[in-house]
Amino acid sequence: MAPVLHILNGPNLNRLGVREPSIYGMATLADIEAMLRDRLQERGYDLIFRQTNHEGELVEFVHAADGAKGVVLNAGAYTHTSVALADAVRSIAAPVIEVHLSNVFAREAFRHHSYIAPVAQGVVCGFGAQSYWLAAEALIEMNEAGRLET
Amino acid sequence: MAPVLHILNGPNLNRLGVREPSIYGMATLADIEAMLRDRLQERGYDLIFRQTNHEGELVEFVHAADGAKGVVLNAGAYTHTSVALADAVRSIAAPVIEVHLSNVFAREAFRHHSYIAPVAQGVVCGFGAQSYWLAAEALIEMNEAGRLET
Amino acid sequence: MAPVLHILNGPNLNRLGVREPSIYGMATLADIEAMLRDRLQERGYDLIFRQTNHEGELVEFVHAADGAKGVVLNAGAYTHTSVALADAVRSIAAPVIEVHLSNVFAREAFRHHSYIAPVAQGVVCGFGAQSYWLAAEALIEMNEAGRLET
Amino acid sequence: MAPVLHILNGPNLNRLGVREPSIYGMATLADIEAMLRDRLQERGYDLIFRQTNHEGELVEFVHAADGAKGVVLNAGAYTHTSVALADAVRSIAAPVIEVHLSNVFAREAFRHHSYIAPVAQGVVCGFGAQSYWLAAEALIEMNEAGRLET
Amino acid sequence: MAPVLHILNGPNLNRLGVREPSIYGMATLADIEAMLRDRLQERGYDLIFRQTNHEGELVEFVHAADGAKGVVLNAGAYTHTSVALADAVRSIAAPVIEVHLSNVFAREAFRHHSYIAPVAQGVVCGFGAQSYWLAAEALIEMNEAGRLET
Amino acid sequence: MAPVLHILNGPNLNRLGVREPSIYGMATLADIEAMLRDRLQERGYDLIFRQTNHEGELVEFVHAADGAKGVVLNAGAYTHTSVALADAVRSIAAPVIEVHLSNVFAREAFRHHSYIAPVAQGVVCGFGAQSYWLAAEALIEMNEAGRLET
Amino acid sequence: MAPVLHILNGPNLNRLGVREPSIYGMATLADIEAMLRDRLQERGYDLIFRQTNHEGELVEFVHAADGAKGVVLNAGAYTHTSVALADAVRSIAAPVIEVHLSNVFAREAFRHHSYIAPVAQGVVCGFGAQSYWLAAEALIEMNEAGRLET
Amino acid sequence: MAPVLHILNGPNLNRLGVREPSIYGMATLADIEAMLRDRLQERGYDLIFRQTNHEGELVEFVHAADGAKGVVLNAGAYTHTSVALADAVRSIAAPVIEVHLSNVFAREAFRHHSYIAPVAQGVVCGFGAQSYWLAAEALIEMNEAGRLET
Amino acid sequence: MAPVLHILNGPNLNRLGVREPSIYGMATLADIEAMLRDRLQERGYDLIFRQTNHEGELVEFVHAADGAKGVVLNAGAYTHTSVALADAVRSIAAPVIEVHLSNVFAREAFRHHSYIAPVAQGVVCGFGAQSYWLAAEALIEMNEAGRLET
Amino acid sequence: MAPVLHILNGPNLNRLGVREPSIYGMATLADIEAMLRDRLQERGYDLIFRQTNHEGELVEFVHAADGAKGVVLNAGAYTHTSVALADAVRSIAAPVIEVHLSNVFAREAFRHHSYIAPVAQGVVCGFGAQSYWLAAEALIEMNEAGRLET
Amino acid sequence: MAPVLHILNGPNLNRLGVREPSIYGMATLADIEAMLRDRLQERGYDLIFRQTNHEGELVEFVHAADGAKGVVLNAGAYTHTSVALADAVRSIAAPVIEVHLSNVFAREAFRHHSYIAPVAQGVVCGFGAQSYWLAAEALIEMNEAGRLET
Amino acid sequence: MAPVLHILNGPNLNRLGVREPSIYGMATLADIEAMLRDRLQERGYDLIFRQTNHEGELVEFVHAADGAKGVVLNAGAYTHTSVALADAVRSIAAPVIEVHLSNVFAREAFRHHSYIAPVAQGVVCGFGAQSYWLAAEALIEMNEAGRLET
Repeated sequence: MAPVLHILNGPNLNRLGVREPSIYGMATLADIEAMLRDRLQERGYDLIFRQTNHEGELVEFVHAADGAKGVVLNAGAYTHTSVALADAVRSIAAPVIEVHLSNVFAREAFRHHSYIAPVAQGVVCGFGAQSYWLAAEALIEMNEAGRLET
Repeated sequence: MAPVLHILNGPNLNRLGVREPSIYGMATLADIEAMLRDRLQERGYDLIFRQTNHEGELVEFVHAADGAKGVVLNAGAYTHTSVALADAVRSIAAPVIEVHLSNVFAREAFRHHSYIAPVAQGVVCGFGAQSYWLAAEALIEMNEAGRLET
Repeated sequence: MAPVLHILNGPNLNRLGVREPSIYGMATLADIEAMLRDRLQERGYDLIFRQTNHEGELVEFVHAADGAKGVVLNAGAYTHTSVALADAVRSIAAPVIEVHLSNVFAREAFRHHSYIAPVAQGVVCGFGAQSYWLAAEALIEMNEAGRLET
Repeated sequence: MAPVLHILNGPNLNRLGVREPSIYGMATLADIEAMLRDRLQERGYDLIFRQTNHEGELVEFVHAADGAKGVVLNAGAYTHTSVALADAVRSIAAPVIEVHLSNVFAREAFRHHSYIAPVAQGVVCGFGAQSYWLAAEALIEMNEAGRLET
Repeated sequence: MAPVLHILNGPNLNRLGVREPSIYGMATLADIEAMLRDRLQERGYDLIFRQTNHEGELVEFVHAADGAKGVVLNAGAYTHTSVALADAVRSIAAPVIEVHLSNVFAREAFRHHSYIAPVAQGVVCGFGAQSYWLAAEALIEMNEAGRLET
Repeated sequence: MAPVLHILNGPNLNRLGVREPSIYGMATLADIEAMLRDRLQERGYDLIFRQTNHEGELVEFVHAADGAKGVVLNAGAYTHTSVALADAVRSIAAPVIEVHLSNVFAREAFRHHSYIAPVAQGVVCGFGAQSYWLAAEALIEMNEAGRLET
Repeated sequence: MAPVLHILNGPNLNRLGVREPSIYGMATLADIEAMLRDRLQERGYDLIFRQTNHEGELVEFVHAADGAKGVVLNAGAYTHTSVALADAVRSIAAPVIEVHLSNVFAREAFRHHSYIAPVAQGVVCGFGAQSYWLAAEALIEMNEAGRLET
Repeated sequence: MAPVLHILNGPNLNRLGVREPSIYGMATLADIEAMLRDRLQERGYDLIFRQTNHEGELVEFVHAADGAKGVVLNAGAYTHTSVALADAVRSIAAPVIEVHLSNVFAREAFRHHSYIAPVAQGVVCGFGAQSYWLAAEALIEMNEAGRLET
Repeated sequence: MAPVLHILNGPNLNRLGVREPSIYGMATLADIEAMLRDRLQERGYDLIFRQTNHEGELVEFVHAADGAKGVVLNAGAYTHTSVALADAVRSIAAPVIEVHLSNVFAREAFRHHSYIAPVAQGVVCGFGAQSYWLAAEALIEMNEAGRLET
Repeated sequence: MAPVLHILNGPNLNRLGVREPSIYGMATLADIEAMLRDRLQERGYDLIFRQTNHEGELVEFVHAADGAKGVVLNAGAYTHTSVALADAVRSIAAPVIEVHLSNVFAREAFRHHSYIAPVAQGVVCGFGAQSYWLAAEALIEMNEAGRLET
Repeated sequence: MAPVLHILNGPNLNRLGVREPSIYGMATLADIEAMLRDRLQERGYDLIFRQTNHEGELVEFVHAADGAKGVVLNAGAYTHTSVALADAVRSIAAPVIEVHLSNVFAREAFRHHSYIAPVAQGVVCGFGAQSYWLAAEALIEMNEAGRLET
Repeated sequence: MAPVLHILNGPNLNRLGVREPSIYGMATLADIEAMLRDRLQERGYDLIFRQTNHEGELVEFVHAADGAKGVVLNAGAYTHTSVALADAVRSIAAPVIEVHLSNVFAREAFRHHSYIAPVAQGVVCGFGAQSYWLAAEALIEMNEAGRLET
């Protein structure tokens, strides 16, 4: 059975391609899922790809990833407001990488703070859909080589 | 002539492998340079790899990268204190990616703020030496495909 | 087909008439809905009137209002804590007006800040059930005359 | 004798139509007065409409409105800096509604704080000249029905 | 019919016994429920014991406890971020006691602030599963003797 | 010889029953001592019960409790201002529980911060004289069962 | 010719006796003037007693007091917002005493800060009309004995 | 029996006349006591005049003044740091006036905040030894006339 | 007709030469006016030179300068407190230069913030009367050469 | 020998004309030097004109200017971050004037604070290359007339 | 008669050797006294060595050192909270040196601020018992050579 | 071979004896070096004594001291601004002591914070040139006795 990565998406990401394309680009979430599925399959990985607008459901998606090889988490706005989500990340063994499509540090001040980042393995942001792929690649390499010397 | 990426390193990174291995790992800066040179060569890219402990010299390394395809910048402590470096980043056309070996958001509060991030293309941190490679890969893909939909 | 306004209500507003009548008045949410339905019908408008205690569901109610003539949004406590809701407001084309029954500026300091207001068309607060009606009237006039010179 | 509303305008509002039309619109203060006079007359109300650039004079205009049915107060910049004006509002029996042409919450941070709002009946902002009319309508309804259940 | 206490649990508490046992102990939520059920039965009380990861659902659990003799509320991370939950607590007549397994004041700074505490009857924290029992005992004594001289 | 608990009381608690009964209740400190002595005796515990208005003396009362089974500490106003007292708590082996008669979180902002809480075992507040008893009970159970799973 | 004291009053003090009697008392400004005139006459002093709602005029009243034996200044709300008034106080030789009818420290936080106090001789507040008299008495004694050892 | 005022002095005031005469003047505390005793005797009042460097003792001096006609309290440095003292002031019926020899608002920022002022009747500062006398006079007048209209 | 510059002076500047000469120098405002008139005449410019202690009047002086070639504005204390004045500056087409006699950055912290500076062309401070002349010269050169490349 | 002025330039100013011309203009640093050399020669002054990207070197350029008639210092980004540079300014006798090409107060908040300004003679900003000339002129006039009455 | 140094110790230092040896070491206060007595005797100095847990008593120990050659003051927790103690230090002529056993800057944030340091001669911390000796040596050298050029 | 101590000096210390003698004294850096060399020789220690105005060079001086017996570091202004220097201190094994000539806590607020202190062994400040010697003595004693019980 192939190892699995969870790609979890938070609020408003179902609006991708519609919502503020000058910030978030024109790719839809389905486009991102398809791109990732292709590339991960090539590397011998399975994919669980989910989106929700509900903080509580995102918490449960994280719980469900406990046994996975890793989690790519674009928590959207909950990145900045959800202690519950950070606690969920701390409650699982799988490494979690925080990603964002846009460079959150070039935007409003309230997007500069993340409750997730201090309990994540690392952060990748500012590369559009590629942010997901870079994070997935990092997880694969960690999985293959054992955790990197950090 | 091969396209060029600049990999620029700030203060104390010459101590890598010696300095606090529990945070920064055991690879030396030379190890990282060798790994990157191998991988970039494979992709048809040249590499200018530099380190300095001097803020002013790092500013000038950034100036010198103006015509390059991109810059991977691990500004170390100057990330958090140098407006001069951020101004240098704004003064060049090449895209700049901020990287860190460690997850700066899991460390002291003064490492959570970056003057560079708001003027960079994006941020990659927390993956040890691989942070450099992920950033380089992002630059290569941006170069090949034109700038990503962000 | 009549043009439509969405009147969206956030957490604890199902308790209206029960909860702290000295602050929120004795009218129930059903009373407010009935009053608005009467007045809007007279003006030739249809009404979608909803309440939820769930942040994620309120986000989705806003998404669903994308094609409407406007949204009257009493986000209750989420006004002060939800970046996700503000992002939802930014993701739709319809103008959104933030309303409150009470004068939030005369209450606890944490109610003085709104994530919604900076991305809304405007704010109406302090007039009890009439806050809703004034906002609806503003939307109707904007719809009829084209957006006001603001 | 008809009941009276006072519509009081603070600093720089004499520049309306000239000053930053992209923010404040092209209507002059005289246009707004005319519009309000028409509509209020229809509803059986008289109007005292005043503008001043002087904080002390605005304080005195508020004092003079003590016996009126209500005050619509666009205090302009004094909204954010004048404790004296807030004290004047507290010193009279007539309900006072704070209005703004623009959505102050979408502007500079120093415009997000109001000394007036905590001592006013409510706030209406972001609807251009219509902000005045909505506030006037709220006062009329309060006058006719007794103070709203708030 | 026996009087009823509601014991309400917030996000990640379904992970108890799994999640960070060095902080939260090895007892599961089911263990805590069993212990409380035994002790409350002895005292002649019934128990409604619930857990949810959803802020909105926790709000509704509080609403549902309106007629109970009291509420023991371990809101987990929502303690620190949810104005909606605090408003729900204010909207019911039953006394609510905030509890935590761990001593939140010995942990990260963002756990030192509670939106619930100012609208609760009191706070009990730092005693593991016994925090629940102490709070329940306080409610029983309040119920039997009338509200304590506070 | 019976095991001993120390119940230590800080400034102004000698005024209990006189001082602001609407906040602190009508029981005197002697009433509380008597109630605790009865209940503790029943459980086989001795009691050292002290009050002082002097920060330095309270520090010394804590020192003197080093060998006890536990300390119930109502430090009154020194809770919010005394680093010396917190250092005393850290200097002894016995577990210390911070208690308050009133719910300090529903009062002035300066009462929301405690120097004691981060170095205490836990906190109980808001239950009048019963706060003492609940804390004592927690200590007894910790003593009997070994320290709780926390 | 008798020595002169200036008693200067700022915004809204013309409303005294009308405005919020629970805070400011029922005496009018004329009552206070009469009381002071009587008492000062007895002591051989003349009185210039003025009120204005205008910051600029209050600045000029202070300038006009340059040659007087002292100034009793109740700057009302301008106490908290007027750097101009503080600069005026610094520009004259006569000693200035800040007075308030109410105890400003028992009111809103923004009334705890005074621009005037650091450049005044001293402060008297909380004694109603008597605040004026105590300040006048201090000035007289300073005048008679030479400046007090302070 | 003559009515009594308590004049209470906090830390370092025993050093008066020695300590920093440029700030505090050359009069000793005994000089001030003598002056007040003379003047109060004339007015038919007795005097209890005390000094202590101990916070706890000052708390007890305040308790002991519960039945007096009033308290003149120069709490010195404890003004700025003692919640215990403020709680003592709140626990007695006698009116308390905060006094200072120097104008604390013209000194270091940490002297601008007082825990006592919000629970005192009023404040007198900046007049050297005369600050005491003005406060005593205020208390006498309050006593004779019933509490002033404030 | 000669082109015109407006030189506008705020509160307390009528006291120049009298007020704190160690900070503001011994030249009077009339001396400054004479010096500027001489120099500007030489350069072919007319001068409107005004002073007021009233914020509202200063606002109106700015309005009146709308058609001028430029404004030299020494707003004195209103620099630090007047949003109304900043709004007036934004409402006119003529370039405005903020000037101060003293180096405001070497004085109290509240003088380091200016509401005017962000909406002015530039700032000149610290050169006494010459600050005015340098600003006038800047305006003349801007006028003659078209706006400088900034 | 002609008197000498030092014109010292900090980081990134070697990029002038290339870097963000919309903010800094199209003139190069060499253009500015040439313009100043011409004008100063006319006035009988010599010029030492230097640029460095190194904080330490800029510190030493300031030291080297100790005997000069004055220093025009555009410290660029080091204005906002360098205490070392401010200490260097304090260590020399020559008057130093802080200049900026752009109006720093109209830019990011971190550019509003200067470590240099409080120890400089004055500040000139917002006039492009002319900022330098105005500062030089101020120094010449100070030199010729003795230090201005400030 | 030999010159005298006062070595004064604040709260909890009587617990030295018992309290948190990982921070404070295993030497008792008596050990430190003995070591200092030996070394000072050798240098011809007498020693007054005292400890108290009472802020007021520590204030009085400082008063009593007025005529000494110097004071070594380890105020423990009162360093961070006692304005009274700082005032005592200011009231005496003898130089006072603040010492700490541990490096307070490597500990909790509230230990980074000292009320004593700004009014002391200097600070020595982080050297365990040797901190005392270094401070004593500094005082001796100051005494012998006259106060150092500082 | 004699053991070695490094005495490292930061920016502007080359100006010692010239720069602000009222703060820093009249001894030059060469005087301090000579004094230390004499005393250390006596104790059998060698000395490397360096000064630089460059942050990067100071970082490298610290790196070069890795094998030494200890470092006395007067980082001057970089104490307050350099994270790079603090990281260098953390990267070496030798103990580092922060020293200052003046008492930095008695100066501007920005000098009260040190990035170095939390990663140093301890701090000595306020004793002029003797600060260096006391620190050197501490290092020698640590070297001779093994690290002190701290």
